[in-house]
Amino acid sequence: MNAAFRTTAEDPLSAARTGLLETPHGVVETPAFMPVGSQGSVKGLTHDQVEGLGAQILLVNSYHLFLRPGVEDVAAMGGLHAFISWPKPILTDSGGFQIYSLSPLVRVQEDGVQFASHLDGTKYFLRPEDVVDLQVRLGTDILMCLDHFPPYPYSDETLRESVRLTTAWARRARARFAEYDTGQQLWGICQGGVHRDLRTRSIEDLLAEDFAGYAYGGLGLGEPKTQLFETLDLGNGLLPSDRPRYLMGMGYVEDIVEAVARGVDLFDCVLPTRNARNGTLFTGRGRVAIKNRKYARDERPLDEDCSCYTCRRFTRAYLRHLFERGEITAAVLNTIHNLHFYLDIFRKIRHSIQSNSFNLLKKSLISNASQKEEAT
Amino acid sequence: MNAAFRTTAEDPLSAARTGLLETPHGVVETPAFMPVGSQGSVKGLTHDQVEGLGAQILLVNSYHLFLRPGVEDVAAMGGLHAFISWPKPILTDSGGFQIYSLSPLVRVQEDGVQFASHLDGTKYFLRPEDVVDLQVRLGTDILMCLDHFPPYPYSDETLRESVRLTTAWARRARARFAEYDTGQQLWGICQGGVHRDLRTRSIEDLLAEDFAGYAYGGLGLGEPKTQLFETLDLGNGLLPSDRPRYLMGMGYVEDIVEAVARGVDLFDCVLPTRNARNGTLFTGRGRVAIKNRKYARDERPLDEDCSCYTCRRFTRAYLRHLFERGEITAAVLNTIHNLHFYLDIFRKIRHSIQSNSFNLLKKSLISNASQKEEAT
Repeated sequence: MNAAFRTTAEDPLSAARTGLLETPHGVVETPAFMPVGSQGSVKGLTHDQVEGLGAQILLVNSYHLFLRPGVEDVAAMGGLHAFISWPKPILTDSGGFQIYSLSPLVRVQEDGVQFASHLDGTKYFLRPEDVVDLQVRLGTDILMCLDHFPPYPYSDETLRESVRLTTAWARRARARFAEYDTGQQLWGICQGGVHRDLRTRSIEDLLAEDFAGYAYGGLGLGEPKTQLFETLDLGNGLLPSDRPRYLMGMGYVEDIVEAVARGVDLFDCVLPTRNARNGTLFTGRGRVAIKNRKYARDERPLDEDCSCYTCRRFTRAYLRHLFERGEITAAVLNTIHNLHFYLDIFRKIRHSIQSNSFNLLKKSLISNASQKEEAT
Repeated sequence: MNAAFRTTAEDPLSAARTGLLETPHGVVETPAFMPVGSQGSVKGLTHDQVEGLGAQILLVNSYHLFLRPGVEDVAAMGGLHAFISWPKPILTDSGGFQIYSLSPLVRVQEDGVQFASHLDGTKYFLRPEDVVDLQVRLGTDILMCLDHFPPYPYSDETLRESVRLTTAWARRARARFAEYDTGQQLWGICQGGVHRDLRTRSIEDLLAEDFAGYAYGGLGLGEPKTQLFETLDLGNGLLPSDRPRYLMGMGYVEDIVEAVARGVDLFDCVLPTRNARNGTLFTGRGRVAIKNRKYARDERPLDEDCSCYTCRRFTRAYLRHLFERGEITAAVLNTIHNLHFYLDIFRKIRHSIQSNSFNLLKKSLISNASQKEEAT
């Protein structure tokens, strides 16, 4: 399909690799973390701040844009990059996840999915072709196929039907996308939960379509971690090494490093940004619930080892005060820190793979992440 | 008392002047606009952004800090500058305005004011001496005396009593402040509404106490503009030219320039920041209600003549989208613009006074401000 991805280093002890992912709006160093800009902004931050933190690619939710302001308005402004004034790569999801999780009324049919807007109840019907069309019109760099997944726990039968539908829709999306010549990339999403045979079938079905990249869907829904990792091992054995792999929506650091060790290149999650707004802050020594009264006179930075603006300039006492007062700036400063924390981990992951020390970093990150609350 | 203020240029056609106001945390060029950082942050912005916009001094509300986190916590952190990590000058108000306007239960007595917290109903009693003590402990650069003012409209009798109490409290505040030797400045607040005799008496009473600066309180409450300006003319004739003058809480550009023409040096107002959060944006061609549907595909910057980050990078369509979605970043970008708009006007005012063109600028600003909605 295209040679937009190439591996630049491989870890000798695992399937971890670094790579360069080329897109019409620039190159992304992988493994990469995509901050979530649901509606076209990373909540609380300016694009300058997001870029300054080192983000190389943004995820924007098709579902939200589709409802408001609508694809027509975005297209009229010259596409999503121009509309939001973000010059770097953008990946849009298919909208499927939001449809299944946010819409109050979902009806999955062979031809596509009917759903009601969670905002005003307006009914929509989207076929896999529509989902390609709308992302092409948005002009984003990486487009995702419309997939289907059942809620966890699921029966084998439900899962089988979900895989069948996902494959059928992926073929139709692939065929529609072939009608365009835009330089964009369409990626397939495999399903099958943690069921070996079904996940295998889903991946093989997608491979036949030769997508530019492959995403794992339907994981991180509550299945045991061992089964999750086995599924990634399975995928690692099946997916071609010259295509990027994306684990959708999973954001715990301990899961991210296990996934990187299994050859995953791309991640997104609302965890750092949403937790920031809720006052849960990540540090190298565990999590800090910044509202805690014990920080009222704490002169230390949030994380003494962190080089972000928030940690360089402000005390825990001030961050607690702003959060407790409900100040907007609390969301801003907390988001700067949490996003820096994540993007910095990805810088370290890439560096460790290139310097043959990924295994060491992985152990250290998993050990840190196991401290649910900061050790004092 | 001290020679912390000196005039650097005088407009030949009005009482407008530029000056330098020295404080322990740096020099402020006047006429100056103080962004309001009610709780220790300008809502939505980082200090870096506020400084980058050119703010030279911040106003923080004693009342809010007094209630939460409390003066003890702030003092324990080394004072307000250290607590909020703001290195430049800070002016704190006395808390009086918030007490009279926010507290559900206010009882003014000869000795001081009893009030209930608007947060949890806790009752407090503050004497003029307490208000000095707490601002000294906050360590701010400019402290304000506790004053009293009645709601508008007022009877002569109410106003007379308010002036008497304000003078009595100012004397006690002045006496208490004389016990300290901190390098801070205590400013007096004159009252008397738009009543010539009472305003005159109030000013003369304060002058006897020799404050480092003088503020006009109890204006902008609904009185006719002509009477407001007459009151500033009156004050201009009475106040010594070697002391800075501060018009509290008034933020309409057309009023600001009239006040500057009458010798006022310092201003604060929530107007630019609060309006930003409410989606009312200032431009050189009038106000823009950014939520308006007509901006949905508007590729223009908010203000083509503006050099702020928001106007350099984003379209009206994007600003409308973010505001309509309730995105936090809408508050951030809008606040950057509106605050830039205000601070830029003050830069222009200072420059015009120094280059003998204030009168021209004043006319132009008043003409612009009279356009309530942007001319299209």
